[in-house]
Amino acid sequence: RVNGERLWRRLMEMAEIGATEKGGVCRLTLTDEDRRGRDLFARWCDEAGLHMEIDRMGNMFARRKGRSNGPAVMMGSHLDSQPTGGKFDGALGVLAALEVIETLNDAGVETDAPIEIVNWTNEEGARFAPAMVSSGVYAGVFDIEDVYAIADKEGKTIGEELERIGYKGERQVGGRDWQACFEVHIEQGPILEDRGLPAGVVAGVQGMRWYDIVVEGDEVHAGPTPMDRRRDPVRALADALSAIYADIPNYGEWARFTVGDLKAEPGSRNTVPGRVTATVDIRHPDDKVVEEIEAAMTRIVAEAGKRHNVEARVETVWASPAVKFDETCVASVRKAAETCGLDTMDMVSGAGHDSVYIARVAPTAMIFVPSKDGISHNEAEYSAPGDCEAGANLLLHAVLDRAGH
Amino acid sequence: RVNGERLWRRLMEMAEIGATEKGGVCRLTLTDEDRRGRDLFARWCDEAGLHMEIDRMGNMFARRKGRSNGPAVMMGSHLDSQPTGGKFDGALGVLAALEVIETLNDAGVETDAPIEIVNWTNEEGARFAPAMVSSGVYAGVFDIEDVYAIADKEGKTIGEELERIGYKGERQVGGRDWQACFEVHIEQGPILEDRGLPAGVVAGVQGMRWYDIVVEGDEVHAGPTPMDRRRDPVRALADALSAIYADIPNYGEWARFTVGDLKAEPGSRNTVPGRVTATVDIRHPDDKVVEEIEAAMTRIVAEAGKRHNVEARVETVWASPAVKFDETCVASVRKAAETCGLDTMDMVSGAGHDSVYIARVAPTAMIFVPSKDGISHNEAEYSAPGDCEAGANLLLHAVLDRAGH
Ligand SMILES: NC(=O)NCCC(=O)O
Ligand SMILES: NC(=O)NCCC(=O)O
Repeated sequence: RVNGERLWRRLMEMAEIGATEKGGVCRLTLTDEDRRGRDLFARWCDEAGLHMEIDRMGNMFARRKGRSNGPAVMMGSHLDSQPTGGKFDGALGVLAALEVIETLNDAGVETDAPIEIVNWTNEEGARFAPAMVSSGVYAGVFDIEDVYAIADKEGKTIGEELERIGYKGERQVGGRDWQACFEVHIEQGPILEDRGLPAGVVAGVQGMRWYDIVVEGDEVHAGPTPMDRRRDPVRALADALSAIYADIPNYGEWARFTVGDLKAEPGSRNTVPGRVTATVDIRHPDDKVVEEIEAAMTRIVAEAGKRHNVEARVETVWASPAVKFDETCVASVRKAAETCGLDTMDMVSGAGHDSVYIARVAPTAMIFVPSKDGISHNEAEYSAPGDCEAGANLLLHAVLDRAGH
Repeated sequence: RVNGERLWRRLMEMAEIGATEKGGVCRLTLTDEDRRGRDLFARWCDEAGLHMEIDRMGNMFARRKGRSNGPAVMMGSHLDSQPTGGKFDGALGVLAALEVIETLNDAGVETDAPIEIVNWTNEEGARFAPAMVSSGVYAGVFDIEDVYAIADKEGKTIGEELERIGYKGERQVGGRDWQACFEVHIEQGPILEDRGLPAGVVAGVQGMRWYDIVVEGDEVHAGPTPMDRRRDPVRALADALSAIYADIPNYGEWARFTVGDLKAEPGSRNTVPGRVTATVDIRHPDDKVVEEIEAAMTRIVAEAGKRHNVEARVETVWASPAVKFDETCVASVRKAAETCGLDTMDMVSGAGHDSVYIARVAPTAMIFVPSKDGISHNEAEYSAPGDCEAGANLLLHAVLDRAGH
């Protein structure tokens, strides 16, 4: 059994880095706060006797030797956060993994297979779109040079910021030898809490796509320009969004439609904007339904553009198809739940995780712990100490099941 | 008659400061570009033998002596621009005034009354809201300490930026002795061009108000959070804006409704925003109609908030009632048009101008010249050389009518 008190203490210590006034965390990827979070994690790994390697995407790999030098068992998640994020999203997975290692160290358990902890760079996608970008490079989904060139709202790139914080490592990205990968994460939704369960066995991840709705009209003066002489992109965007929101219930209870960010250019109070942009996130466990919603959105946006005589279009930013995790890894988690005497359920993740991409190159599964009120990406995000501990215990036993001892 | 060629040359030289790639100007108030524009204007005034004074708001007063030391005749406008503005909005009024002085100098004309040119700080309101803020302080509408504290989107204040660019003068704001004030400006709308007239006699300015629509919900994760558990402020804002736009034609052809800027916080693609803000600009020549539109907007926003279970409210940022200019000043402009043999019409300004506030403390009128395609607050803004010259000639003769020679 893991030491739940030590795990909680470390979660709280990590949460001090980038702590916000409202009790949350702002540790956006590749900022100074992220660097400090990484430094702290590296120190803890060092104290636990692990060997650290860093690759060219800044992904951190902390390795505990096994009796054999064969394929390793991997536990990974991320230390970056949303701009107004919580203490648990990502950090729980990395620190539960560290707690598993500490528990093995304390008990003097040697495993046959080596064990590795990974901290993936930019899982959140909040500062640099898309999300899960470094596990994506690892899995060959993205080209590293393209990813280096991705810029934040201020124009700073991933490549520059990796160098600036001193975490652009030397090792090639990808190609590590993993026989099984596990990620503990908070659920970020209400299902486990609603059912009163301490943990969930994650059998897959829903499909998700990111878009920009871009509408272009003419910049003109807010005062003297008659309404019927305007090509006002705000009007078309408002009409389109209003119609899309109204359409979403037609796709059933699992459909998700989110506009996370809005921009008007030039963004001056007394000028009709020349261009407005809305970011869109669409999700559904069935990729076909994601495509249906996309088609409806594209049609509605085009119609609104036509009606108001502006250029209106939908640009795809990122697409991540639905994922089914590896049966044997899922089975190891179920077995761990039995060993620990924990009631669980099988579930589909509503959020994306690095495990989505890792599942393409290695057998993978995930473990969820409940989120209070189903809330995440919010400073009020909370998971109880006992639930975090339960998640770490499931991870411990799933890893032992695969690593052999 | 003024020297139209010299006026045009100076307009083009001024437009090089902050020139944009698309042929427009970005000379936002109190930036380095604004400082360079001010420096150039100050040099030209110096070369024309004028005496310069700067007040605590950075307003610049360039004075030509009269035979008497009595009340002056003032000509003023502004050198700041929109973020993607044109070469004429503001600059024409300042440089036409300078051209009037040069013409009097060239012809060796002494006037009875002194003549002053004013360059007002932050007319546009694009970087710091509201607009016309320094003529407002001059007229006692705003308190100077409140205005110093107004911040731009990056948190820099008017007070700091005035000091930084070295234009926080020593003189008290207000209290100069003016018998008549004139401002030449581009129309920024389509009326003069539609009627084929070279100039307009501006008898008043329509009422205008600025607001923020603020909608607050809950930040939650875009993936796992069911739609019916969300308090999504974007949905309520889209519904409200769509309904308001549809309502505006009910207020007749002179009603104006503009959303110039949009903001989502925290502005992360995979997080439902906790708060969204839309800036609103409402105008109508009749203040009663402005109030009716405001009431309808306030009702629609509240209903959308209620329907979608979010906090939705309208905050007033600024209100500028409709203005009627001084009859005798308007008559001087009409007389000047006769003297110059120019066809004109009486009109109401759709845009706000420093003359709106100056009209509260001194007799004031304005002169409009046509805007190509009615376009302003756009890099494509254009007024023909002949029209700019005609405006300056009207200014010359209106000033001579009041200053005596
Ligand atoms: N777990 C998590 O918040 N991941 C971010 C990627 C996503 O938007 O689902
Ligand atoms: N003339 C002009 O563009 N003034 C800015 C103030 C307004 O919004 O009308």
